[in-house]
Amino acid sequence: MGMSLGDSVRVTLFGESHGSAVGALLDGVPAGIPVNIETLIEDLERRRPGRRLLSARAEPDDCEILSGVYEGKTTGYPILLLVRNKDAKSRDYGFLPDQPRPGHADLPEATRTGGAADLRGGGANSGRLTLGLVAAGSVLRDALGDVKVEAHCCQIGSIEAEFGGEPEGEACTVLNCNDVAAAEQMLELVRSLRKAGDSVGSSVEAMIFNLPLGVGEPWFEGLEPALARGLMAIPAARGVEFGRGREAVTMHGSEHNDVWGPDQVPIGDDADGALGGMSTGAPLRIRVHFKPPSSIAIPQMTLHLPSGELRELQIGGRHDPVIAPRAAPVVEAVCRLIIADLLQLRGDLV
Amino acid sequence: MGMSLGDSVRVTLFGESHGSAVGALLDGVPAGIPVNIETLIEDLERRRPGRRLLSARAEPDDCEILSGVYEGKTTGYPILLLVRNKDAKSRDYGFLPDQPRPGHADLPEATRTGGAADLRGGGANSGRLTLGLVAAGSVLRDALGDVKVEAHCCQIGSIEAEFGGEPEGEACTVLNCNDVAAAEQMLELVRSLRKAGDSVGSSVEAMIFNLPLGVGEPWFEGLEPALARGLMAIPAARGVEFGRGREAVTMHGSEHNDVWGPDQVPIGDDADGALGGMSTGAPLRIRVHFKPPSSIAIPQMTLHLPSGELRELQIGGRHDPVIAPRAAPVVEAVCRLIIADLLQLRGDLV
Amino acid sequence: MGMSLGDSVRVTLFGESHGSAVGALLDGVPAGIPVNIETLIEDLERRRPGRRLLSARAEPDDCEILSGVYEGKTTGYPILLLVRNKDAKSRDYGFLPDQPRPGHADLPEATRTGGAADLRGGGANSGRLTLGLVAAGSVLRDALGDVKVEAHCCQIGSIEAEFGGEPEGEACTVLNCNDVAAAEQMLELVRSLRKAGDSVGSSVEAMIFNLPLGVGEPWFEGLEPALARGLMAIPAARGVEFGRGREAVTMHGSEHNDVWGPDQVPIGDDADGALGGMSTGAPLRIRVHFKPPSSIAIPQMTLHLPSGELRELQIGGRHDPVIAPRAAPVVEAVCRLIIADLLQLRGDLV
Amino acid sequence: MGMSLGDSVRVTLFGESHGSAVGALLDGVPAGIPVNIETLIEDLERRRPGRRLLSARAEPDDCEILSGVYEGKTTGYPILLLVRNKDAKSRDYGFLPDQPRPGHADLPEATRTGGAADLRGGGANSGRLTLGLVAAGSVLRDALGDVKVEAHCCQIGSIEAEFGGEPEGEACTVLNCNDVAAAEQMLELVRSLRKAGDSVGSSVEAMIFNLPLGVGEPWFEGLEPALARGLMAIPAARGVEFGRGREAVTMHGSEHNDVWGPDQVPIGDDADGALGGMSTGAPLRIRVHFKPPSSIAIPQMTLHLPSGELRELQIGGRHDPVIAPRAAPVVEAVCRLIIADLLQLRGDLV
Repeated sequence: MGMSLGDSVRVTLFGESHGSAVGALLDGVPAGIPVNIETLIEDLERRRPGRRLLSARAEPDDCEILSGVYEGKTTGYPILLLVRNKDAKSRDYGFLPDQPRPGHADLPEATRTGGAADLRGGGANSGRLTLGLVAAGSVLRDALGDVKVEAHCCQIGSIEAEFGGEPEGEACTVLNCNDVAAAEQMLELVRSLRKAGDSVGSSVEAMIFNLPLGVGEPWFEGLEPALARGLMAIPAARGVEFGRGREAVTMHGSEHNDVWGPDQVPIGDDADGALGGMSTGAPLRIRVHFKPPSSIAIPQMTLHLPSGELRELQIGGRHDPVIAPRAAPVVEAVCRLIIADLLQLRGDLV
Repeated sequence: MGMSLGDSVRVTLFGESHGSAVGALLDGVPAGIPVNIETLIEDLERRRPGRRLLSARAEPDDCEILSGVYEGKTTGYPILLLVRNKDAKSRDYGFLPDQPRPGHADLPEATRTGGAADLRGGGANSGRLTLGLVAAGSVLRDALGDVKVEAHCCQIGSIEAEFGGEPEGEACTVLNCNDVAAAEQMLELVRSLRKAGDSVGSSVEAMIFNLPLGVGEPWFEGLEPALARGLMAIPAARGVEFGRGREAVTMHGSEHNDVWGPDQVPIGDDADGALGGMSTGAPLRIRVHFKPPSSIAIPQMTLHLPSGELRELQIGGRHDPVIAPRAAPVVEAVCRLIIADLLQLRGDLV
Repeated sequence: MGMSLGDSVRVTLFGESHGSAVGALLDGVPAGIPVNIETLIEDLERRRPGRRLLSARAEPDDCEILSGVYEGKTTGYPILLLVRNKDAKSRDYGFLPDQPRPGHADLPEATRTGGAADLRGGGANSGRLTLGLVAAGSVLRDALGDVKVEAHCCQIGSIEAEFGGEPEGEACTVLNCNDVAAAEQMLELVRSLRKAGDSVGSSVEAMIFNLPLGVGEPWFEGLEPALARGLMAIPAARGVEFGRGREAVTMHGSEHNDVWGPDQVPIGDDADGALGGMSTGAPLRIRVHFKPPSSIAIPQMTLHLPSGELRELQIGGRHDPVIAPRAAPVVEAVCRLIIADLLQLRGDLV
Repeated sequence: MGMSLGDSVRVTLFGESHGSAVGALLDGVPAGIPVNIETLIEDLERRRPGRRLLSARAEPDDCEILSGVYEGKTTGYPILLLVRNKDAKSRDYGFLPDQPRPGHADLPEATRTGGAADLRGGGANSGRLTLGLVAAGSVLRDALGDVKVEAHCCQIGSIEAEFGGEPEGEACTVLNCNDVAAAEQMLELVRSLRKAGDSVGSSVEAMIFNLPLGVGEPWFEGLEPALARGLMAIPAARGVEFGRGREAVTMHGSEHNDVWGPDQVPIGDDADGALGGMSTGAPLRIRVHFKPPSSIAIPQMTLHLPSGELRELQIGGRHDPVIAPRAAPVVEAVCRLIIADLLQLRGDLV
């Protein structure tokens, strides 16, 4: 089923960008896990547009928990997380379905559903549905025990940022970026692109810390395969790398192999956190690459279906010129959901 | 379940590298699909070591079809593909489980299974199990109709090869590489590495042609998520990219967006074959990056578990110094299996 | 996952009897199916307690459709059906968890969840969650095309009722029973049991009409296995029979075998509607047997956990003295959900 | 997928009655479980036809374990259980597909598969595939720890047998029946039916002992729903009952409710072993009802498809006149497989 992720802990997203609501149903969470509402609000705040200068759509994002939590703890039953939609302006999408936007899934979606899908604002394909992912990932924080997931925006255009910095100031906060100097340059770039009506590609780097040795399974239920599936489902993702990723292609085995150390963890600053689908005890490094957002203010040529001709299209409204800043908390949430699923498989969810 | 891939068309791998047999059980294939034994043999031949100068292990790989095919056609029931093991030399693995190999999953696997796994030759984690994938993917060829998948070795170390070449000669054949000039350089590199007892990283590029518009679903059952999961499960994969992949990070939206053309396909040589999880009608470009093989002849330090000390380990036997050449047909097979699953979901499997 | 039914069309129930809400998330419904709100209200009305003299709990059951339906048609995305709880009186359950009720799952549930479940009113085990099933089954009505499902209360205690009657009058309506004479006797019995503070067992008979030949699969995805699973999940179900059911045990093959007729349907009034998991074209007859409700007003002895002694327990509130009347629309809904799942598997959902 | 049962422990059946082989692939069994070959042979012997006077087909049933077991213990990877076919006489089925047999699934199966299925001997629908179930269930015996499953033939025609007897002598052995006096009458009946060329219905009773409190989940992953699905998939099953089953319909709540006793188990000889999908600690009683076998020697009228007329059909070969004796070990195996799946879900598989 396209809207579900996970086997033993399963999240199902629902809602449409311009419908009544969006949210997630989270099934398989063990009973007795504390759920912290403050943290849930903070997590949702990190992905919220508007306050960030990145998008003009204001989303108050009041998230209701309508089942599965009793007296502050999970009951072991499905947890319904619901957010009503408020600020959608459907008039911005009057050109659909006649003029499918370049870089968007309007045409494949209309074709696949025989025209029945609600395409306004991307419908159920909209990045707005990541709200349910973030809410569900937040609810699982305490279930993961010592395992921590941290993600930041590590690249916008050709500006790269260090994971290991001390985030400080507005640029770091607005961009979910750990590196002060890079964040300031990035913010400059983002502002100039917004002015120009254009957008730019970006990357998120995530680290998973404290995974015990041997989480995940060889082959298709492995750490990397499970994470790759979940992360590639984030809208606009175009690639994912684990450990040294594409850099490993130019390395020799004698250089890439990590020596197992006396504490049964591979030695080295950049030692691989996963081998053959299973965690090694070293931190697992992940990078997700995003294309530039397809909605740009610059007029574009595109097919006009009724006439069969290419015609100019100008997309109204204001849109994010870059994805990674808002995607960082989504990457974290997806990692948490998948780690929970893999831990539950071996009976280790707290 | 870790050994299964797919929902409506599902392959389950079984077997151990040094056990009695390896193979695959393929469930969900519609009745009446022709199965071509000649093609099955050729497909298995492409991933076979030995003849290729890449590995010294001879594997005759006689594949039996023990169920699900009747009078040359599928019956609609599970297809059992079985290959007996013959040439395994277990004496090469006497150092296990005491000395987990650097870069291998011996230690996570022993930990995860409480010591019960058969670690010889990598056990069920061995690349030998990709044989079942290739066999299963081959059986599905005719079920895919016009959809074609082609993969080649596109990079070894820093030597890159073009997809669009005309493969010719031993180097192209041995390396499953389309580019004559690059393949000859690659072969030179591989031979020198074998001599040095070292290994090197590599990449496979695959193209999926003729996917009709709208195959795959938004979110978790999307083309890219499903392919990413399957491809990252190939042993030693460290990253996967779709379309322009990591290159998209430094692009602008105005440059990356593909205009929808009059035939309802995005225009451009490198137009994206998938948007939001669904096919666009353009060819889908995929790259998979592999680390250098971890089994090298150069002596390495590693943990000796009984003493808790690092001790030198010399791994005997001869091993592949590079992965992509033999992984190319595996990448093809995984793509076929996943496309079949997605087509079946929409009732389009031939 | 315990709260989900179906593979290609999947319903997940959520909510707790005394929590904020109950409902269902329905995934996998094709795009473009008309959804009739009037019919949804009628279907919910049939399972509603209160008006029926069967239960004193008033449930207005206003069902919101919060996603997946746009302009009266399904969008192909998850459909969220939500009903807020209003009339629950939690003070009636002060004896839990100390005194587990005879015939109820309080103790297994508290044990299984380590005490974290919300046991009030049966928590997530409550019959109130069948509301989600009925709503989801109703939404699928138009997706089933010509296939019709009808169920009625066919037995209460030793009073049996005919399926083929013309329901008329209050007794038939209140009891969801097709047989006027039997329904009047049943109503008499139910009233006397309510007065006596006791309860009684009952059965539902369902017929599925117009299933095309060959729906369902042999073995575990068969019609009977799939239906049996779904129907046995209805609270208090103790048995399920298909076709001639238990009566077939005393029959001979020469008597039980149904001759295939010229129109490729088995001949005979009671011909089997399913063979080997697949539909035959004849109507499929199903019976589901329910135990007497465990909540009775008569004082009962039961374990008092803190003291380890048996002590008397008097359960307050008013409870249904019989299950089949309200279970009939639930049986219908479960049949619809499962038929939709099996039809979707073969690409036949309208 | 129609040929798979279970989620966390999953068995997939494969093979055709008159193809090369039958067997099962069992995935999800934890590593380190001892596998006893002697017991496997005995379990297969109990379902074997031929020696039993019940069927004339001799099946030596030499079962190979081709993967997933190493040095007598499970490795945690898929276990391939394979039995080659030997004694099939395909000439007995020359009337197919022209004359679909009364009571058989030939016509639905041919329709469903577009004529591509191998119908000889029932193809993949054949009871012969229960061999894989019995083998898989046998392999799981040690994984279940103290949980024991015992089944016997409890009814043939109107002759009923007691579960609690001491089986002794040929009749008990041949019929898998615990009750000496009943078994002798049953054997007499079976012999007379064989002589007359007819068949008769029958029932299996199973008891599951020592299930700890709280195994199974409410709703669709409950004990009864999971068992009902698996048991109704056994060819010819027409009904399944749990606890007091259909008898509960005529009982009052005050009579049916089981008091929780001081040891936290319901009191009473016939106390319910499952409530709301979860085990209570009392033994769980199950009955499965089978129709008379449809293959009878008496000539029958049936549709001749090419002419569209009813014509007489005489089915050659010798066939079982009753199902329960050979189904008893299959019922046991299905119960073991499902209990293993539910125990694994809560991390309790030994």
